[in-house]
Amino acid sequence: MQRRLVQTASYLIRRNNVACRFSRYNGLPVASYSTKTVPFTADTYSQKVQRDAKFKQLESQDIEYFKSVLPENSIITDEDDLLFFNEDWMRKYRGQSQLVLKPKTTEQVASILKYCNDNKLAVVPQGGNTGLVGGSNPIFDEIIISLSAMNKIRSFDPVSGILKVDAGVILETADQYLAEQGYIFPLDLGAKGSCHVGGNVACNAGGLRLLRYGSLHGSVLGLEAVLPDGTVYNSMHSLRKDNTGYDLKQLFIGSEGTLGIITGVSILCPSRPQAQNVAFLAVSSYEAVQKVFVQARKELQEILSAFEFMDNTSQKLTAKHLGLEHPIESGDFPFYVLIETSGSNKEHDDEKLETFLGNAMEEGLVDDGIIAQDEAQIQSLWSWRESIPEATTIGGGVYKYDVSIPLADLYGLVEDINTRLNDAGIASLDDESKPVLAALGYGHIGDGNLHLNVSVRKYSPEIETILEPFVYEWIAKKNGSISAEHGLGFQKKNYIGYSKNEIEVKLIKEIKQHYDPNGIMNPYKYV
Amino acid sequence: MQRRLVQTASYLIRRNNVACRFSRYNGLPVASYSTKTVPFTADTYSQKVQRDAKFKQLESQDIEYFKSVLPENSIITDEDDLLFFNEDWMRKYRGQSQLVLKPKTTEQVASILKYCNDNKLAVVPQGGNTGLVGGSNPIFDEIIISLSAMNKIRSFDPVSGILKVDAGVILETADQYLAEQGYIFPLDLGAKGSCHVGGNVACNAGGLRLLRYGSLHGSVLGLEAVLPDGTVYNSMHSLRKDNTGYDLKQLFIGSEGTLGIITGVSILCPSRPQAQNVAFLAVSSYEAVQKVFVQARKELQEILSAFEFMDNTSQKLTAKHLGLEHPIESGDFPFYVLIETSGSNKEHDDEKLETFLGNAMEEGLVDDGIIAQDEAQIQSLWSWRESIPEATTIGGGVYKYDVSIPLADLYGLVEDINTRLNDAGIASLDDESKPVLAALGYGHIGDGNLHLNVSVRKYSPEIETILEPFVYEWIAKKNGSISAEHGLGFQKKNYIGYSKNEIEVKLIKEIKQHYDPNGIMNPYKYV
Repeated sequence: MQRRLVQTASYLIRRNNVACRFSRYNGLPVASYSTKTVPFTADTYSQKVQRDAKFKQLESQDIEYFKSVLPENSIITDEDDLLFFNEDWMRKYRGQSQLVLKPKTTEQVASILKYCNDNKLAVVPQGGNTGLVGGSNPIFDEIIISLSAMNKIRSFDPVSGILKVDAGVILETADQYLAEQGYIFPLDLGAKGSCHVGGNVACNAGGLRLLRYGSLHGSVLGLEAVLPDGTVYNSMHSLRKDNTGYDLKQLFIGSEGTLGIITGVSILCPSRPQAQNVAFLAVSSYEAVQKVFVQARKELQEILSAFEFMDNTSQKLTAKHLGLEHPIESGDFPFYVLIETSGSNKEHDDEKLETFLGNAMEEGLVDDGIIAQDEAQIQSLWSWRESIPEATTIGGGVYKYDVSIPLADLYGLVEDINTRLNDAGIASLDDESKPVLAALGYGHIGDGNLHLNVSVRKYSPEIETILEPFVYEWIAKKNGSISAEHGLGFQKKNYIGYSKNEIEVKLIKEIKQHYDPNGIMNPYKYV
Repeated sequence: MQRRLVQTASYLIRRNNVACRFSRYNGLPVASYSTKTVPFTADTYSQKVQRDAKFKQLESQDIEYFKSVLPENSIITDEDDLLFFNEDWMRKYRGQSQLVLKPKTTEQVASILKYCNDNKLAVVPQGGNTGLVGGSNPIFDEIIISLSAMNKIRSFDPVSGILKVDAGVILETADQYLAEQGYIFPLDLGAKGSCHVGGNVACNAGGLRLLRYGSLHGSVLGLEAVLPDGTVYNSMHSLRKDNTGYDLKQLFIGSEGTLGIITGVSILCPSRPQAQNVAFLAVSSYEAVQKVFVQARKELQEILSAFEFMDNTSQKLTAKHLGLEHPIESGDFPFYVLIETSGSNKEHDDEKLETFLGNAMEEGLVDDGIIAQDEAQIQSLWSWRESIPEATTIGGGVYKYDVSIPLADLYGLVEDINTRLNDAGIASLDDESKPVLAALGYGHIGDGNLHLNVSVRKYSPEIETILEPFVYEWIAKKNGSISAEHGLGFQKKNYIGYSKNEIEVKLIKEIKQHYDPNGIMNPYKYV
C-alpha cells in the first residue's frame, strides 16, 4: 500500500483528512484513527436497497476454493484489513465484505469469476478505490476483487507509442515510465498517484487533458477482460485501425465493472510535449469566460491542452484551505481561468500565448492574469485548480455533482442552486450557524464539464430536498448529463433516466442481461 | 445524382473509367455504356454463397405498403435505374435487387424496417455507395434502403464545434458548411464528394487525417439509428463527456449496416487550421521511412496532420496514369513520403517544418524533397497521393488489400508478395503478356495502415492462389488486421478469423443475434 502515500503533492493535500486510514492500514497505532466510523451503506440507504436473496452467502468452502487457485497473500479476511477495501476514500460508503481477493494473473481472475458465477456469489471489482460515486465498494457482502496485484507493464513500442499494461498499473507509474521514453499517458487526473489504468478505463475517466488527447474511446486500442462466466476476452490489439467486426471493447469502457473485469489495457500514447505554459486569468463574467474559450480554441488551437474555469467562491475556499494569498492579487474577480499549452517549440508557444492574451486583454475579455515562469510556478498554479475539491470540504462536507451541460447554460446551474439555498435562508460563507456555505462551480469547461459542489457544514435531508431532484431536472431540461466523468456507481443508479431516454436505458439493461445473466457483477449499481 | 459528378478533382480522376455508368443514370444514351456488364455476385460466388430461403421474396403487396409510408419519388423499381444501386463503383459486385427505397425521415426508416423485420424481407442500407468491399450492394434480392434523401444539416453550435446531421449528408457538403464557420470535419477521404457521413460512421472510415483528429470512436458524440425491429434509438447527444451507461452507439460505428440503420450523427469538429504545409520527400529505404516518421512525430508533434508513404512502383504507375513528370525529378527513389502540417500560425509551422527537414536531410534520412509554395501546389502534391488507387488499375484491374500491420513489418508484405509473383514468373511492369504488373504499397503509415495493391492485366484464379490465403496468413502472423479501414463487407466475410480470435468472433456473432435475430440486416456479409 506504500504507493498510496507516495503521491503527487496535490493528491496528498486532497487526501490528508483521511490519511489516518492509510496509516492504520500500514500498521500504525489504531489510536491515530480519530475520525468517526462511516455507517454501513446498507443502513444509510436501507430504504433504497436490500440485499438480493438470490446471491449466495460466503462460506468457508468458498474460501477454500479461492485458496486453491490463488497464491499466498492474495486473500484478505482480517476485519481491520478489509476496512480499507470496504470504504470509499471520501468516507461516504462502507460495505460489509468479508473477503478481498487479489489475483496476480488473468487466469486467476477467470477462475474466481467462473466459480462466483456458478455459485451466484456477487463480486465488486476494485482498482485504486478512488471513485466518487461508490462504484468500487460493496453495498452488502459482495466479494471484492482487487486488481492491485496485477501491476506489470507488459510492453511498449517506441515507434508507434503503443503501451500495454496490466489493469492494476497505477496511472502515475505508467506515465513516469512513458516519460522516460519521450511519451505521455493520454489521461491525467488528480488521483493519478493511486488510481489504476484498468479502473480508469472501466470508468471512462476524463480528467484534465481530454481537451487535447480525446477520450479513452479513441485512445484505447485493445482490452483484455474476463467475462462473468470466466471467459477470457483477449482483445489486446495494438492497431490504430482495425475494422474487423463490432468494436466490443468499447462496451467495457465506462461499464464500471458491471460486465466483467478488465485485466489488461493497450493504449495509444502521444509524444510528450517538449514545452508547457500555464496562464491564470481573471475574468469578469461567465459570458467572457465563453468568449475567451472560443478565442483560445481558435488562436491556440493545436497547443491548447487544458482550459479550466473556477468561480469566485471556489477560489475563496481554496485560499482559506491552503492558507495562501490568491495568485492574482489585484482584486476579487467573479471567474478565473487556467489555460495550459503543450507543444514542441517553447518559443512558438510563448509567442502564441502572449499574442492571444494580449488580444484578450485588449478586447476586455480578461481583466488580469499571470503566466507561470518555471516548472514550480506551473505546479503552483495547477495546485490552485487541483486543491478545490479538498477545499470544498472545509466546512465539514460537500455534495458533489459532476455534470455536462451545453456551454452557454453551464454556470446557470450554480446560480440557480445558490438562489434556492439563499431563498431557504440556509447558506452563508461566514455565519457558522447556517448548514450550507455555498454552491460553487469549477471544471473542465473545454469539455462542457461542470463540477457543481455544494459546500456544507453538515449533511441534512433539508439540504438534499433543495438539491434533488432539482439538479437532475435542471440538467435534463438542458439535455445535459448527470454524470460527465464520475460515472453512475451506487450514488446515481436511479438517476440515469435524467440523461438517457427510456429506449436507451432499456437497451443498456439488455446488454447487462446479455453478458451477466446472473447479475453477479457489481450489483445494486449502475442501472 | 448531380452531386456524384460534382466532385473534387482527385475523385473525378479516380472515377472516370466508370463515368459512363453515371451518365447513363443521368439519362444519357445507353450507347455510351461501353464497358462490360458486371456479372451477378451471386453467379461469381455461387460456390460461396446461396440465397437464404428464410427470406421472403418481394411481392407487389410489399411495394404497396412502402408506397403507403413513403412520399412520391422515394421508390425505384425501374431496371435501369436500379443498376446504379445494385453495382459497386469498382464494378466488382452486382446485386439483383428489384427495389430501392429512399426514405426522407427517421420515422419512415422505422416503418420500413419494422415491416421488413415482421415479413422477413432482407435489406441493405446504402450511403454514397463508395465502399471497397461490396458491403453496400445486395448479393441477391435484398431491398436497398438508400439514405440519399436524408441530407439535412440539423444544427451546428459554433461555441462547442458540435455538428448534427442527417446520415445522408455528403461528407464534402458537411465540410464545406463547417469551413464557413471556421471548423473542419474530423475525417477526410478521397471519396468525400460522394460518400455519406452516415456511411462513414457505419464503416468507421479512417482516411487521411486520422493521425491528427483520431478515430470516429472518439469524435462521434451521438447517433440516431433505427434497429431492425423499427425501434428508434435516439442518442443524438451533444456532450463531450457523458458517463451514464454503456456507450452503445460505439457498436454502430463500424457495424456496416448489420445492426440497424444510422439516420443521424452528432460529431465534435475541430477548429479549421489556419495554416497548411505539404512536403513531398524522397527516401532511400523503408527503414529510413520509419525513422522519418518517428522524427516527424517528435519534431512536428502537434502540427503533423498526415504522414503518407508511397513506394516506387506506385509512383511509376501514377506518373504514367496522369501523364506527368514526377514532382521529384532528381531521380528514381525507392520510397516517397508526403507530410502535411496544419496549424494556427503559418510562420511557426514553416519554421518547424524547415528545421525538421533540414535535420532529416543532414542525417541522411531524406534524399530529396519539395515543399508546396501555395494552395495549388498543395493540391497537386496531394493528387499524387490520391491518384494512386486509380493508377493501379492502369493495366485493367487490381487486387486491393487494406491492412494494418505493426510498422516495422509493414512493407515486408509487399516485398514478399512480389517475390511470390516473380517466382511464379507471372509479373512484369513492361511485358504485356504477363498477367500481373506488380504488387505495390502505399498508405497512412502514421496509422500503421498499408494499402497493398496488386496491379493486374486480368483477374485469374492463378493469381488469386498466389495471393490468398498467403496475404491473410502473413498478416495474422504479425498480429495485424486484414481490414484496417475498408471493413469486412462481402469480400472479407470469411476472413475475420485471421484478425480476431475465436472468442472475439463468437462474441461478435452473439451481438448480431442480439440485435438482429431474424438476420435481415445486410445478410451474407460481415461475420
